Formats: sequence, structure tokens, C-alpha cells
Amino acid sequence: MTLQLHDLNLRGFASDNYAGVHPEILDAIAAANQGHQISYGEDVYTERLHEVFAEHFGEGVQVYPVFNGTGANVIGLQSMLPRWGAVICAKTAHINTDEAGAPEKVAGIKLLTVDTPDGKLTPELIDREAWGWGDEHRAQPLVVSITQTTELGTAYSVEEVRAIADHVHAKGMKLHMDGARIANAAATLGVPLRAFTTDAGVDVLSFGGTKNGMLYGEAVVVLNPEASEGLVYLRKLNMQLASKMRFISAQLIALLTDDLYLRSASHANAMAARLRGALEAGIADGSIQGVGFSQATEANGVFATLPAGVADRLREHFRFYDWDAARNEVRWMCSFDTTEQDIDDFVAALVRELRA
Amino acid sequence: MTLQLHDLNLRGFASDNYAGVHPEILDAIAAANQGHQISYGEDVYTERLHEVFAEHFGEGVQVYPVFNGTGANVIGLQSMLPRWGAVICAKTAHINTDEAGAPEKVAGIKLLTVDTPDGKLTPELIDREAWGWGDEHRAQPLVVSITQTTELGTAYSVEEVRAIADHVHAKGMKLHMDGARIANAAATLGVPLRAFTTDAGVDVLSFGGTKNGMLYGEAVVVLNPEASEGLVYLRKLNMQLASKMRFISAQLIALLTDDLYLRSASHANAMAARLRGALEAGIADGSIQGVGFSQATEANGVFATLPAGVADRLREHFRFYDWDAARNEVRWMCSFDTTEQDIDDFVAALVRELRA
Amino acid sequence: MTLQLHDLNLRGFASDNYAGVHPEILDAIAAANQGHQISYGEDVYTERLHEVFAEHFGEGVQVYPVFNGTGANVIGLQSMLPRWGAVICAKTAHINTDEAGAPEKVAGIKLLTVDTPDGKLTPELIDREAWGWGDEHRAQPLVVSITQTTELGTAYSVEEVRAIADHVHAKGMKLHMDGARIANAAATLGVPLRAFTTDAGVDVLSFGGTKNGMLYGEAVVVLNPEASEGLVYLRKLNMQLASKMRFISAQLIALLTDDLYLRSASHANAMAARLRGALEAGIADGSIQGVGFSQATEANGVFATLPAGVADRLREHFRFYDWDAARNEVRWMCSFDTTEQDIDDFVAALVRELRA
Amino acid sequence: MTLQLHDLNLRGFASDNYAGVHPEILDAIAAANQGHQISYGEDVYTERLHEVFAEHFGEGVQVYPVFNGTGANVIGLQSMLPRWGAVICAKTAHINTDEAGAPEKVAGIKLLTVDTPDGKLTPELIDREAWGWGDEHRAQPLVVSITQTTELGTAYSVEEVRAIADHVHAKGMKLHMDGARIANAAATLGVPLRAFTTDAGVDVLSFGGTKNGMLYGEAVVVLNPEASEGLVYLRKLNMQLASKMRFISAQLIALLTDDLYLRSASHANAMAARLRGALEAGIADGSIQGVGFSQATEANGVFATLPAGVADRLREHFRFYDWDAARNEVRWMCSFDTTEQDIDDFVAALVRELRA
Repeated sequence: MTLQLHDLNLRGFASDNYAGVHPEILDAIAAANQGHQISYGEDVYTERLHEVFAEHFGEGVQVYPVFNGTGANVIGLQSMLPRWGAVICAKTAHINTDEAGAPEKVAGIKLLTVDTPDGKLTPELIDREAWGWGDEHRAQPLVVSITQTTELGTAYSVEEVRAIADHVHAKGMKLHMDGARIANAAATLGVPLRAFTTDAGVDVLSFGGTKNGMLYGEAVVVLNPEASEGLVYLRKLNMQLASKMRFISAQLIALLTDDLYLRSASHANAMAARLRGALEAGIADGSIQGVGFSQATEANGVFATLPAGVADRLREHFRFYDWDAARNEVRWMCSFDTTEQDIDDFVAALVRELRA
Repeated sequence: MTLQLHDLNLRGFASDNYAGVHPEILDAIAAANQGHQISYGEDVYTERLHEVFAEHFGEGVQVYPVFNGTGANVIGLQSMLPRWGAVICAKTAHINTDEAGAPEKVAGIKLLTVDTPDGKLTPELIDREAWGWGDEHRAQPLVVSITQTTELGTAYSVEEVRAIADHVHAKGMKLHMDGARIANAAATLGVPLRAFTTDAGVDVLSFGGTKNGMLYGEAVVVLNPEASEGLVYLRKLNMQLASKMRFISAQLIALLTDDLYLRSASHANAMAARLRGALEAGIADGSIQGVGFSQATEANGVFATLPAGVADRLREHFRFYDWDAARNEVRWMCSFDTTEQDIDDFVAALVRELRA
Repeated sequence: MTLQLHDLNLRGFASDNYAGVHPEILDAIAAANQGHQISYGEDVYTERLHEVFAEHFGEGVQVYPVFNGTGANVIGLQSMLPRWGAVICAKTAHINTDEAGAPEKVAGIKLLTVDTPDGKLTPELIDREAWGWGDEHRAQPLVVSITQTTELGTAYSVEEVRAIADHVHAKGMKLHMDGARIANAAATLGVPLRAFTTDAGVDVLSFGGTKNGMLYGEAVVVLNPEASEGLVYLRKLNMQLASKMRFISAQLIALLTDDLYLRSASHANAMAARLRGALEAGIADGSIQGVGFSQATEANGVFATLPAGVADRLREHFRFYDWDAARNEVRWMCSFDTTEQDIDDFVAALVRELRA
Repeated sequence: MTLQLHDLNLRGFASDNYAGVHPEILDAIAAANQGHQISYGEDVYTERLHEVFAEHFGEGVQVYPVFNGTGANVIGLQSMLPRWGAVICAKTAHINTDEAGAPEKVAGIKLLTVDTPDGKLTPELIDREAWGWGDEHRAQPLVVSITQTTELGTAYSVEEVRAIADHVHAKGMKLHMDGARIANAAATLGVPLRAFTTDAGVDVLSFGGTKNGMLYGEAVVVLNPEASEGLVYLRKLNMQLASKMRFISAQLIALLTDDLYLRSASHANAMAARLRGALEAGIADGSIQGVGFSQATEANGVFATLPAGVADRLREHFRFYDWDAARNEVRWMCSFDTTEQDIDDFVAALVRELRA
């Protein structure tokens, strides 16, 4: 039987989830195999997982491995809210734009969205929707959700997160962080994970694994146990409880051991920086014309604008997505397995198409 | 770094999901790794998966890989029902007893449950709840769900499934099958998968993988496309859409290739038969006393009654669950990796404890 | 313009909600009319309503007027439960059989139903489903709901309610009472409302009005404020908040003033007793043959069995419902406006049809 | 017993639901009283109601009386949408701002909101969110909801509704109208109800009664039966089915007979015009300074801006709401029972406070 069906040479910049699995992760899965382990989380890997997260996020944090990022966000938010709650988020937040209405449809959460220039909320932007407590006619804004790094490739600084957390808490609300790319944030900020999460005042975190080289699996991390209730039940009833949980836990342990999370994310960030650097150099020396940047490149994504038609021609060689087709804006994402050669080939191809 | 944390010698009969991953499945995952593949199901493995399922279940079937069995059941049922629908099932059905209310809480499905002696519905039992269509005060019974093999270790024959399907269809309802252990059914019935599903009139199937040696992953299989609507959306909004779907698909392909599904399930069934046979022999020759059987052993589970106290003592050596503690009923499950030695050791231990 | 379209002479025994509005209730609505009052419950009638309920149910109770009984039950139960909660109730409970799955579909509540001979739960019957706390695979049984008087025309005694409440509370659960016919219970028990509610340990009550002569309107009454959370929000988001609430409150005040609730319910109960008495007398003297009773007549309903065919012929003159057609069981309900003549005419008609 | 608790002289401009019940409506309720009628909508009043709505909206329309406006909107929208649907509406839409998240929380509907200057959508504004069909990551925009008259006191012309309907239908979507103040629209447009609903292409309508002099009750009106499914079930399971439905139907019949709906709404509109006219005259002759208008007055509401502090002082005499406190914007609503004297007194008081 031929197991391998795909062309290994296909490469692209469409999404960090087009990449496969990091070899160290596969090794961890194999090591956790064989023999019998109690299902649904009473295995020794999940037990160890709590220690590993405590090392990175502080004593007393709770970890709930789940299948995917939408699941992590939905059950994390639901555990923070009564049935009458609403969540303030950026209009570009993944929970608003890319989760098919799961927060509303599965968890009954109303999203109060705010326009932002760069995907980042601020205390001032939050206040556009942070009002109306006690008014039964208004879904109650009780949680603010921010994404780190954002859907636009930008990162909140430690100070920015802390300012938001202080503001949110002062108003009696709680702070949720969608950390689908939290490792990329740690890499770009150059600080430990807890510096911009637990220590900055985040209450509940979606810890991302799949976009950073895991086969599957994320975790809801409760940094402030007083801010969350019932996750053990919510995970199950929302269909996010893995029977063979030992394998998600083993992957997460591997990711957080020997800095694998940081090595992979730093590499992805560096590849994005290499791409942006090459393009900026070309713009500076005049060899590249018509290319602009719509967002800062602070993590593993580059948001650029291209002359009309270039994106489609370029896509014949490398897959990537339009971000806002109306203004010829594209998104290029790098992953743990993006190579310098990938970047150089891509820049060369772009230069060719710009001249075509 | 020490990756392996668990004791490989721990064995038991608690559940088929205490086992790990079949080596052929791990090989399939590794073979699908590296390079970039489109996420969310547009990869070549998922493309191939449709052909594989067509070979086993017939042309025109639709396959939707998901994360777990609860997810498969909930979105499969939801795709078959309007918002005012109800599902008739056995009181012992997994959807009723072990899914934390997910059908009700996530999908808004009312379950109309029927007592059964052996976990199996019949046309007569179905009719206890199959009434009231058009009455707006009653959640409308529009789907019947059966489990194959059942939660009590029994199996529907081809004829029994067909009789139910005909009955259900004659009343304008649809038939759903929870096939968490569908491979064990194929093994015990000795017929192709389609014989007791597509060809017997089942409309939508949850195809189980995890309990039969997969790392994770199941599939909703629409056998009758007219009986299901919107699964592509329901899977996503119910948080069951895997980004790196190629790896679930690769596992399912491996399971259905070279009869791996059947080899593994036949082995598990044979181990349960060996266990039951050894006990019955002991009962017959008087060496075993006080042990009875509460269900037929038609697949990979043995349901037995023991003298008071024996189960707890036996559990100090082998993990398994009480089924109905009030009447000293226990459940012993075998899996693809159960060995003859496991069975023999277990019988020996049971004999010891019975005499203690 | 001809306002009156219906035949005033149509009478029947189908349901207490086939009757219209008590004249004192209409007077109360007219008196509350004209001028402007704050909408959504800040009017003086709703303010007064709290005092009225405090007089009947004790200081500190909270009252939330709503539109209908299903609404009262659903939001009352929802306010008592986390998202992972389940409710134990009799299989014949209105919330299970006649609310179209609203508890499941709107509130995400799983119902754990128990068979009963007479619509009444007992501590022993409750225990059939009162287990599994802490097991994330089982919707958590946290509330027991009883109906007073029951859907089968029976009534819980004060002692029976108290025994259930003590049992429920001892297990860490809460007690809900569906009091759609609470006035009939007060009438048959001959005790104040609080004797079998607040004082007996009920936590949250659905107080019925419509079946006892109101135009529309019921109330959720929180007898134990620690047992309920967020009703002010749940009422609104579940679409049960009346803008012109003064008129529901005015009706409820009228019902609870000068014992209107008791006068109406006592009359309805007496009419049911007259019906049963006449039939039993006829059975005793042999003038009525083939009629049996399937339930005790403790409130305003009579449950009887008739010879085949009699019910349908009788229905040509008086509307009423089959209860269990398979065994020729019918239900006859009396209301505040049932007259002695109605009863006598009905008995005469039944005698005629029995002989036909 | 003293039935009347409130001060009849309290008057205000807070909302059209602060008013009571029109005497003709009370007469209709009384006329429908006494005798027995089948509950839940099989009564003769509800039967007649269908004819009345057919006269106003065209043959073949379906009418579903419900309790309140939120209920009408939620079940109407739900009947138009699969579980994966989303609704495009103005950010100021009542369904978005004043229904406590009921569309999201009860019906699982995601709202895609658009900023508007005057509460009115246009084809161009709709297109900001009308995209992404077939993309499973996006809740599918399948319905557009407009409010007539709008929450900002403006009205869509017949042509504007038709242009939206044509646009919506051309994209395969459906058009919903929240007609909480539909009578005010008919009055201001001077055309029959069907001209800007059925004939303009609206598919499903919430027909408002409470804000126009009814005691309680609205109706979902299906103008295009192909655009809606299952309302008979959705009404019940969403707790909007009245047992004594004859009384809602009798009110709606009265409202639509002898032009009561139009007389009441025309009066309310005229009172708003009188208020605006008096203020504009004062502004013109210099006797009123510092007052501006933030919206056109096309129905029964006036949206004005006042000098800081004036609103609070004025509210000591007449109750009304701030609309946007940050810019001193207030809303004044007139109702069927607003008198010319009310207006004149209010203008006089405003003039006094402006000079204070």
C-alpha cells in the first residue's frame, strides 16, 4: 500500500496550518503509544501537563486540552460568562470572522465588535461597547477578548496587554486571550509566556498548538481560576473532550519542552521578517515597484498590497490568500517549516510577476 | 528529554479507548507529513478518502471527517433534523447516557428514549415514541438512532437493521446509526460494511475510528444524501472541522485499506469470545462459581455479574468499570491490542479472587 | 362592527384554558388602563405585586411576571442551573410532554424522566436518576421539578412536598414546582399557598394564572433567592418580558386579592368532584356501566376509562381529549366557569351514549 | 378593593409602550370573552384573523399571533434560516440593540451589522456584509432585516423597500421586516399596508400591535410562504404560543377593522409633527435656542439635541430617554393617546428649561 499521496514539494504562504507536524511532535506521540492509559484525561501525560503549564504560566493555572482553536475559544469564553453575557472584540477577531458563528450558535454568546486599524483593541476602543450593565435589554458585556498575535500579524506589547487588563478589570469585566499564535508573540516580544499573559492580567487563554507544528490540539488555560467555571463539563458537552487525551497532552508537553514552541515560532517570525526585509530592500533600491505594506510585520505574517493581477499570477506558483481583494491586499504566512529558500524563491517569483 | 512517561505493562479491560494507536495508523500519519497541503479538507488525502468510502459504502456517499464520536453523532443527527425535531433511541444509547447532554445542549435535539432489554430497538419499541406528528406541542420524532454494535455488546443482524429501516421510512422518519464500533459489527456479522448500513437502509452513519486503533478521528458518512443537509456548515460551526485534516483522512484511509479495520475488530471480538469461553468452561466444570452473564457476547465486550466484592478486588490488578453496581454487573472490553495472555491472566486472577 | 364572533353556548371539558377571563380580572385590566406607566416592569402595579406575593409566599420572595406557563417553567429552571445541568421530572411532566422540547431547545436543559403511576415523584423515584455528580459524561442532575397539581389530576400533600424537598436538598439539588394549577392545589389541600411551597422547601415556583381565569400571564416566583440567578436577564432574552407589564401585574394582584384564586379553583375542583360523584353514584346503583377511573380526582380533572366508541360519540356534544386512546382513557377538565348544569348535562349525555 | 393604583395624570414621551390600551381594543377583548373556545389557535377569532390579514396583505399570507415583538422577530427570522444562517441588519436595529441577544442566544442567529446614518439600509450598505456564501468559515448571510419605521424615526419609501427586496432576492437572500411600528409607516407613506410589504417584496413581517394601542400581542406574517418553514413549531418551542389565543386574535382583528391601526398611528405621527413644528417655529423666530434635530421626523418620534443639562431638568416633569447621552441627544415618542395639550405643555416646559 502506498501511504504517501501528496507532493512533498508543494510549498506556500497560505496559512501556518498548511504545514505538517514537527518531527519532535511525532516522536512524542510515538513515545506515548502502546500499553493502556486511562482515557479522557486521567493518564500520566495529562497529569504531567499540568506541571509543565505551571512552569510556564505560574502555579495554580488549570489546563484543559481540546481539539481545535474554535473549540478552545468557545468553551473558554463560555466558562467566563453567564447565559446573558456578551464579549467585546475587534471586528477582525477570528471568533467573529472565521468561526462560522460558533460563539453565537453553540455558546449563545453575543459579540460586540469594534473597528480597529490593526486588529488591536485599546481601552478607548473597548469603551465603545463597554456600557449598559444592569440593563436587561442589552446583552451584558462581561468579557473582552484579544488575539495575540492578532489576525493582522501585529502583537500587543506587555504594557498594552496590562493596560487593557487593568481597564477591563476596573470595569468588572474579564480578559480572554485567543493565543492561537501565542508562541509567535513570545518570540517577537522576547519575554516568557507568562509575562504577557498571567502576569499582565489575562484571565483565560486559548493556547495554540496546531499552527505551531502540532498534529492537532490546543488547550484552554485558566490563569485566574476565579474567572472561569465548569470547564470540565463544558469541554465534554461541547464535544471537545478527546478519549485518547494522552496524545494531545504528550504533544503539548513536547512543544513546551526544550523551547520547541519558541524555536518553531522564532523561525516562522524570522522567515516573515526575511520576506519583508527582502521586499523593503527591493522597494528601496527600486527593483520592486507597486508593492506596499498594510500592517506592521511583528510575527509570522506579512500583509501587503500588490498591483492588480499580480496576486493571481503569483498564486500559480505559491498558494496564499487575498485578505481584502477590493484593495488588492494579500496575506503571506510563514510556518515552522518555511525555509530561507522558500522565501528567496517567492521573492524572485514576485519580482518576475511584477515585471510581467 | 524523556518522552515516555507511562508504564507499558499496564493492561486492562476498561474500554477500547484505553488502548493506543495501531502501528499502521502511525505509519500513515508519518507518510502524510511534510510539505504543504491545503487545510480544512481540500488536501489530497481527503480527496482520496471519498473514493475509499465509496468502495466500502457505495457510490455517492459523502464523508465528513470529525474529531470524535460525540461530534459525529451530534452533527450527523443535526443535519437530519429541523429545529423542532426529536430522536428516538434506546435509553442506554451513548447519545443519551454518555455525551453530557450534547445533543440537547449543543444541537437542541430532544431525545425520546425507550427501555430495551439488550440495547436494541425494534419496530415495536420504536412505536412507543413514534407518534404525534403535526402536534406542535410535541417535539417531532423524525429520526431513529441505533448503535451498532450496541452499548451492551450486542449486534443488530442485517435483517434487524433492515426491518427497522423499513419501519422508520414507512413512517416518514430517517435512520441514523452510531457506528462507534461498526468494525466490530462487520466482524461479528461477517458481511461487508455496506450490507448492514447502506444496503439495509441506514441514512446517516457515525463511522468510528478511535475505538479501533486510530489516534483520533471519526467520520460522518451520509449514505442517503437526501436525508442530510448542511453538514459542511454544521461541522465547522460545531467546532469539529480539523485544520490539518489530511491526518484524519490518512488514518481513515489506512483503517479501510488492507482490511485493517476488520483485522483489528476481529481480534478484539475474538479476545472477548476467548474470555467468555474460558469463563463458561469454568462454570460448566464447576471451577468458577457465582459468575453470570447479563448480555450476549456478540462483539468485543463481556457483561457479567460477580459475587459482591469480587470486582473491587479484581480491579486492583486490572482496570474495568462497573456497569450496574447495584446488581454487581461489570463490563469488560477488549481492544485491538488485547493479547491472549491478557485474557488468560485475567481469567486466572478472577478465579483467584472468586476463591479468596 | 360585530365584535363577538363565537357561540357563547359552546361548553366543554377539554381544558381549563378553553375558558375565557374572569370578570374581576377584566375589571382589573380596565382599572390599570389609561395614563402612562413605565414599561417593562417599573410601573406601580408591578411594584405592588411584590407586596402581594410577599403576603402569600413570605418576605423576600421575588416575582417575575411572564407571558405563559412554558415561559415560566423554562426561565425558572434555567435560572437554577448551570449550562451543564439536568432536571429530574416525571415522564408525564408538562415540561417533558407538552412544551415541544422548549427546555432542551431553548434552554439546553436535559430532562431525566422517571415513570410514575400517578404523575407524582417520590424520593425513591427521584433516586433512579439522582446520581453521577462530578462525572463530566453525564448531564448533571441539579434540579428536581414537580407539578402541583399534577398533569394527572393528583395533588402532592404538604408532607410529600416537604419529604421531596428535604431529599433533594440533602443531595445538593434544588426543587422546582410547576404550579400551573397551584390554586387548585391550595383549594384541595385547604392550606395557604406558602404551606406547600415556601414552607415546604420549594425553591422556585411557576405560579399559574391563565388556567385559573386570567387573560394571559404567569409568574416565576423565587422563593429561595439563593437558588436562582439572573432571572431579570433570562426573562428578557427568552422573550418573556412584557412591555406593558402593568396589565399582567394587575391581573395577578386581582387573582391574589379577596381570594379570587381560591374561589375560582375551589369551584373548578368542586365541579370535578360533582362529576366524579355523579358517575360513582351511577356505578354504585348500576345505572352506569363500563366506566372506570384511572386516577384519583383530587383537583379539577377526572381521568376515566370508557367503553370503546363512547368517547367519540360523546364528543359530538362536548369537547374533551383522549388521554391514552389505546386504553380508552379520557380526561375531563373543569374550570372556573363550569356550571352545575354543565356537569349534569354532561352526565346525562354520557348515560345516553353508554346505552346507545 | 381598590383596583386603580396609578396616577392617570402621568404623561410622557418615553415610549409608545408607556401608553395603555385603546378602548376599542378593550371592547374587542370583552366581546371575545365567555363561553369556551378551543385553545392554542383553533378558535373562531384566529380563523377570522386569517381573512382579515388576507384583506390587508393579500391572499395566501399566513398569520401567527405571538406575545411580543422580540418573539415575533426571533421566530420569524429563525423560520427563514438554516442553523448556519446570519442576518444583515443596521447596527441600530432593535434586534441588535434591544433584544438582549435573543437572536443569538435563543435562535443561534449571527447578526452582521452595518453602520447607517439614519437607521436605514440600502443595497450598497447591505453589500458590506453580503458575501462569503459557500465559505463554511463564515456564518452565511441569508436574510436581510429592515425596520419600518426605523428605530430612528425614519421611514423607508415604497421604492426604497422594493430596491432592497430586489437586491436581496437577486443575491439569493430573503427580506425580513420588523414592523413594530408598521402602522406609523402606513400613516406616513399614505399607502395601504401591502404596498410597502407584500407588493414591495418583503418575505416575512413582524406586525406590531402593542406599540399601537393593543394590550399585548404581535403577529408574524408570512407574506411569501416559500421563504419560511416550521413557524407552527417554532412559535410553540420558543414559548410564544398563547393558550387563550382568541384574545390576541380579537385585538388584531379590531386593530385592522375600521382603520383603527391607521387612526391611532396617524394621530401619533401628527403629534410628533406638531412637536417638531412647534420647535422649528421657535427656532425660526428665535424663541428657542440650542435645540437641533438629529433625524428627520417621519413617524411618531422626534430625535433632538439639547444644551447640556436641559434634558435632566425637563425630565423632572416629563419622562423620556436619552438616545446618545454623549452628544446630548434625546428621543421623544408620541403614542395614540398623546394629546395636543401634552405637546403644548411639553413645548412650554422645554422653553422654560432652555431659559433657566
